[in-house]
Amino acid sequence: MERRRIDLPEEEIPEYWYNILPDLPEPLPPPIDPDNGRRLKLLQEVIPSRPLQFEFSSERFIKIPEEVRERYKQVGRPTPIIRFKRYEEYLGGWLKIYGKMEGYTYTGSHKVNSAIPWVYYALEDGAGFVTTETGAGQWGSAVALAAALFGVKAYVFMVRASYFAKPLRRYLIQIYGARVVPSPSDLTEFGRKLLAENPNHPGSLGIAITEAATYAREHGGKYVVGSVINTDIMFKTVAGLEAKKQMELIGEDPDVIIGVIGGGSNWGGLAFPFLGEELRSGKVKRRYIATGALEVPKVTKGVYKYDDPDTGRLLPQLKMYTIGADFIPPPIYAGGLRYHGVAPTISLLMSKGIVEGRDYDQETVFAMAQKFAELEGYVPAPETAHVLPALKELAEEAKKEGRKMTVLISFSGHGLLDLGNYADVLKFG
Amino acid sequence: MERRRIDLPEEEIPEYWYNILPDLPEPLPPPIDPDNGRRLKLLQEVIPSRPLQFEFSSERFIKIPEEVRERYKQVGRPTPIIRFKRYEEYLGGWLKIYGKMEGYTYTGSHKVNSAIPWVYYALEDGAGFVTTETGAGQWGSAVALAAALFGVKAYVFMVRASYFAKPLRRYLIQIYGARVVPSPSDLTEFGRKLLAENPNHPGSLGIAITEAATYAREHGGKYVVGSVINTDIMFKTVAGLEAKKQMELIGEDPDVIIGVIGGGSNWGGLAFPFLGEELRSGKVKRRYIATGALEVPKVTKGVYKYDDPDTGRLLPQLKMYTIGADFIPPPIYAGGLRYHGVAPTISLLMSKGIVEGRDYDQETVFAMAQKFAELEGYVPAPETAHVLPALKELAEEAKKEGRKMTVLISFSGHGLLDLGNYADVLKFG
Repeated sequence: MERRRIDLPEEEIPEYWYNILPDLPEPLPPPIDPDNGRRLKLLQEVIPSRPLQFEFSSERFIKIPEEVRERYKQVGRPTPIIRFKRYEEYLGGWLKIYGKMEGYTYTGSHKVNSAIPWVYYALEDGAGFVTTETGAGQWGSAVALAAALFGVKAYVFMVRASYFAKPLRRYLIQIYGARVVPSPSDLTEFGRKLLAENPNHPGSLGIAITEAATYAREHGGKYVVGSVINTDIMFKTVAGLEAKKQMELIGEDPDVIIGVIGGGSNWGGLAFPFLGEELRSGKVKRRYIATGALEVPKVTKGVYKYDDPDTGRLLPQLKMYTIGADFIPPPIYAGGLRYHGVAPTISLLMSKGIVEGRDYDQETVFAMAQKFAELEGYVPAPETAHVLPALKELAEEAKKEGRKMTVLISFSGHGLLDLGNYADVLKFG
Repeated sequence: MERRRIDLPEEEIPEYWYNILPDLPEPLPPPIDPDNGRRLKLLQEVIPSRPLQFEFSSERFIKIPEEVRERYKQVGRPTPIIRFKRYEEYLGGWLKIYGKMEGYTYTGSHKVNSAIPWVYYALEDGAGFVTTETGAGQWGSAVALAAALFGVKAYVFMVRASYFAKPLRRYLIQIYGARVVPSPSDLTEFGRKLLAENPNHPGSLGIAITEAATYAREHGGKYVVGSVINTDIMFKTVAGLEAKKQMELIGEDPDVIIGVIGGGSNWGGLAFPFLGEELRSGKVKRRYIATGALEVPKVTKGVYKYDDPDTGRLLPQLKMYTIGADFIPPPIYAGGLRYHGVAPTISLLMSKGIVEGRDYDQETVFAMAQKFAELEGYVPAPETAHVLPALKELAEEAKKEGRKMTVLISFSGHGLLDLGNYADVLKFG
């Protein structure tokens, strides 16, 4: 029987995260603070201290605390790699396709890979609770679970429109015992002011960030953040480090690595351990492709410049590919891809031509996702499915060149809480 | 690092199903037909022929076709066993608790274990398509996936009230490419008649069975059935046979085996391979507990007698514990536990005192399920969660007797498509 699934035993959960900073082709442009240090000060007050140190670290490997490895195990790590044989055949047999299955974690996505260490380091600082913001709820549910596993309270500020319109992940947050409030909320001065102006305020991620950060500062908590910054991506390399072992186990080496980019932590989490090795050797032979949503075309139409990472302009500016912090994305169903910028580390690599960007429209993506599910049985998250058009293009390329390719994709999550979105886009009766 | 998860490689997917019939303490009372052979004739016309032979087979082990083993692999088999260490501690440390995780299959429950062979044998008979009925959609989505993997069309008759009120699993059925219609439907004479009388007819499983069977008979398809009968439980023993290997792998032998009973295929699928071995040896030392919903109290208040397995009275009568084919269950959220009877094989074992039944009310069960999710990170299906009160009782018993116990539970499914039900019962804001 030919293997479909490559498991890894729990003892093999990595003992170190990988930090790409020392291996980048040139130093990363530092964050800048246009508000005379006010933004940096806020960061120092609300972000757990050790992750803030990691953010500028030149250490290549950073030890994963045993308490974190134990929780990784607790949420379903290591995740398997799966070979998609039927989809390969559907694409003409030119690709070998392996997926690193982050949907196998209990919150259904890669997000929990960083939520666990964030909460751990918040507690190391003596935080009484943790706070965060969430849009569709992927990050919020990951933080809620991490907090539950460490026995500490989490406050999740959920964009008010999503809170009411897309309740499924909110329920998951509640099942895990976290307090989730629609933002703007009555828990902060800022939220109360906005609610007074408009009791039905739809909210935004920017507002939710402001509320989460100020609530943490005012009440002895710590604020945790789920993408874009170096430390968060470093935490997420646990997936790529596992994948490297798994591929070696079966004697495979991917020619191409593909993943989708929301803020970049999914992409970097898988790709960095592979890419870093090549950067150190001085020769990048593999191809690295980052895909996104054509409706939020940051990887194809973004400009590489300093911009605000948050619409609320609370956090220091970062140099990144961006379509502008004020860009208002259309209401697309891949909520995780609505972010306006690309993580600074990945942006630098894009600017050097080492990482290639491609964007695809929602209708194409959902139709391919449906076909994938029918062939492989596994329903991808809408975000994850943005790798599928790239696979098709690679298969056509391989056929033209008469040369087979091995592709590793970051299968960032399952789509079981997105079935309603499938029904909307595919117009189910 | 102590193991949480016991994996099994794909090569270890069992090569034989286990048929308990030859090992029962006495011959199973046969089905009877109060309609002069009309019911048996319908069965012979619409049910795939090989499964109908298995139904009365005295062969202990029946070979699983390679094409079926391949599809088992394709949907996520073997599933892991997981040890619930935090929940053990929560219960005072008196139990070792292992769960056989059927929610790891792609449709999220044990149902796909029999859907795959049913579709396989339907095609062996030359069926042009398969039909089935579904309530909340667990069985329907399993058949839809099985059909997709064999490249054949499935028609799923879904109880009309569920079709509109609980669309998530319906969407899953549609993603897998099956045709799902609200029953009563306009695809059959019977359905059209009911719709003419009442265009908003809520439907019932009985009506959906009638439509699925007659549509198959009239148009060259085969009808497949997802619980209760011997063959279906035999197909589902793939889970118990895996679990036996996994427990042996870690040198553990359960003192108690627990699972919930809808019709009995979940329970038998896990327990029969363990129990059969004991029946053969002439000595049953383990305890076998079957749990259900107090709102549909068949395992505690059922009567052991011949009854109709379907409210439509199309199928031969079976001797089983039943609260009556006309019992109208209250609208409980564990849809899979609404069935009125217990599979004949399990009923016989209950009548001999070999299997013990316990029923629990919904509020207790959901509150325990929430706590379980908070501690273990994994959200159980509401049906599955009906084992949790039994665990608590066992822990109390073990404490009283000062004797630790090892418990194996059938973790029949995950609750990610049931989050709305959690919110309803637990009254989330």
